[in-house]
Amino acid sequence: MHHAADILLTLFVIFIAAQIGAEIAQRLKLPGVVGEIAAGCVVGPSALGWLTPEQILPGTPLDVLAEVGVVLLLFSVGLETRLDDLKKVGKSAFLVGVLGVILPFGCGALWAHGEGFDWIKSLFVAAAFVATSAGITARVLQELGVLSRVESRVILGAAVIDDILAMLLLGVVSSLQGGGELNLQSLLLTLAGAVGFVAIIGWGGTKVMRRGSGWLEKPISPHSPLTLVLALCLGLAWLSTRFGLAAIIGAFLAGMIASETRQREDLEHKTLPLLSFLTPFFFVITGAKVNLSELASVDALVMLAVVTVIAIVSKLAGGFLGALALGNRSATIVGFGMVPRGEVGVVIASLGLAAGVFNERVYAIIVAMSLLTAMVTPPVLAMLLKRGSTAET
Amino acid sequence: MHHAADILLTLFVIFIAAQIGAEIAQRLKLPGVVGEIAAGCVVGPSALGWLTPEQILPGTPLDVLAEVGVVLLLFSVGLETRLDDLKKVGKSAFLVGVLGVILPFGCGALWAHGEGFDWIKSLFVAAAFVATSAGITARVLQELGVLSRVESRVILGAAVIDDILAMLLLGVVSSLQGGGELNLQSLLLTLAGAVGFVAIIGWGGTKVMRRGSGWLEKPISPHSPLTLVLALCLGLAWLSTRFGLAAIIGAFLAGMIASETRQREDLEHKTLPLLSFLTPFFFVITGAKVNLSELASVDALVMLAVVTVIAIVSKLAGGFLGALALGNRSATIVGFGMVPRGEVGVVIASLGLAAGVFNERVYAIIVAMSLLTAMVTPPVLAMLLKRGSTAET
Repeated sequence: MHHAADILLTLFVIFIAAQIGAEIAQRLKLPGVVGEIAAGCVVGPSALGWLTPEQILPGTPLDVLAEVGVVLLLFSVGLETRLDDLKKVGKSAFLVGVLGVILPFGCGALWAHGEGFDWIKSLFVAAAFVATSAGITARVLQELGVLSRVESRVILGAAVIDDILAMLLLGVVSSLQGGGELNLQSLLLTLAGAVGFVAIIGWGGTKVMRRGSGWLEKPISPHSPLTLVLALCLGLAWLSTRFGLAAIIGAFLAGMIASETRQREDLEHKTLPLLSFLTPFFFVITGAKVNLSELASVDALVMLAVVTVIAIVSKLAGGFLGALALGNRSATIVGFGMVPRGEVGVVIASLGLAAGVFNERVYAIIVAMSLLTAMVTPPVLAMLLKRGSTAET
Repeated sequence: MHHAADILLTLFVIFIAAQIGAEIAQRLKLPGVVGEIAAGCVVGPSALGWLTPEQILPGTPLDVLAEVGVVLLLFSVGLETRLDDLKKVGKSAFLVGVLGVILPFGCGALWAHGEGFDWIKSLFVAAAFVATSAGITARVLQELGVLSRVESRVILGAAVIDDILAMLLLGVVSSLQGGGELNLQSLLLTLAGAVGFVAIIGWGGTKVMRRGSGWLEKPISPHSPLTLVLALCLGLAWLSTRFGLAAIIGAFLAGMIASETRQREDLEHKTLPLLSFLTPFFFVITGAKVNLSELASVDALVMLAVVTVIAIVSKLAGGFLGALALGNRSATIVGFGMVPRGEVGVVIASLGLAAGVFNERVYAIIVAMSLLTAMVTPPVLAMLLKRGSTAET
């Protein structure tokens, strides 16, 4: 009973902190999500300590709530995305995805080697520079109501490709690091599995849903269309992890499939309260993971600044070059949209720490870089998109 | 990353099991909640074992999700309840609450003493017979759309009183069991705290909200009325545990306060998707906690039958006598509405096991009794209420 009481207090604190943070951010003309992440820093272990480091470890109740929150967020983004719209930007999205992986990986490896890591370890460090976290950008695009813009579609398509490539890269780097030989066959199998999963679910699921969404309308339970697509969302989120992809990729595909049904608008409407309740946990906990104390030296801050600049510039350049066909302004928006690393960088950094590839300080710096990119992106993106829309009208 | 994948699969399994269980129950003309609890038995450790005993311990992610689910459920029930309606049935609710505690406590103590427990231990066992779990009845009343009926209001009012008395009783019994002296002063303080909490929050909160709900309308965030009342719900759920009451009492009061605002209908509407997503976790996990293997002997089954009959009859009698002023049929409905013990009985039984008051078998029997009362009530209640409404038209 006391345990239940403690967790309720924690949920209350997180939820209130998120609301206050979002409110302050909005008064400062920043996206609400910046305020939620900052609120996480404030209530987290580094500052007020209302959340302990143990409470936000992987597999804890708060971590699971955060995971469910970001899964639902990407599901709702999928609900606002049609496969046909995504297909139209396929080429740009592919280029953005590929260049957005190659440039940060290359720059990251060069930096790490310059810092004295051997080449194999450098490749591992570089992997943490790669994976874009679609959650933060998606939330900003949703907050601004611009998910139907061409830049948004390029970003979302590229995020899927980005995740596939990042997953492969991590596989390669881990096996090199583990001293194993590079098995080209198993690598191609992994690639085929991931691409096959996305293609079959995204393309096949959409086809099936377009033809037969009538069965969703039969009232088998009071809120059946919603519960059925939520089940689909949880199921595909899990399944995509089985193919080595992030859970949010499966959730996004589930939303995209559900967007083909006639209940699309009703579903979008009903998903909003779920987002209001659950996504704050994701963003607050993301913020709480920054360990400010490891960064309390000039050396560390300089290194953090360098790493963050490399991470931002290399991703921005990759995205910009990939989307150049859309024009300079749109390519800039796409480039910045790919910048946030968020929790994916954190996960890779944790693996690196556990494998002994680098020490606590490099770990703290990579985590802080991941989160800094997540905090820098929303205001820049909001500014670019708002200016863009003013210019259009 | 693998941890996240595992939990997503578990969430998917629970969610799907709940939908299938509810669907089957409804085809059998039973309330959906019976199917959800039964689905929990099936996927739980005793049968299929898709949920392990470790996964449903207090404080685990699933347990927290379940707790959040039942908190939101009682919040939504509160949203459909007005303080003024509750006041009208105050006398009946009070009698039902008091008699519904005294009779099961007395009968439970007599049974336990007859089974060979000394008197102090018997009182502890008897405490597990007492506390009504409002969640299950509330869900049935909500499913049938009869929350505005007088019987529903008596049950909800009585559940609050029941919880206060059960809490006091547990305090007394625990201190007797611990060999401590009965401190009348501290007991009165506890009582005053609990009653004061309910009175001040329920009565004062309602007054404040009636006068000044205008500030809820100012758009400080996109979904602000909802997020503000959800924050209130989490906050009061936690606060009520600080006064020794169940978290659901605070959540219910939060809902009742929110029902005084002009956004009441909008809030009810927006709470539904949250319930669809989160309450199945509560009911499936409630079902998963039944340990069928401890009951696999004739002796145990006989004892379980006796205990369950005592638990049902004593509570039914208490509720019936307390609500007699409403007429026989209504009094029967109220009586059955108070029968489910659900998770409160489970919690007391766990305390008893931990304190060495009784063994694994008595523990399993008390847990099974708590859950049996939870499973027996919904169909009976649905039958009585449906027949009642046909008679009225």
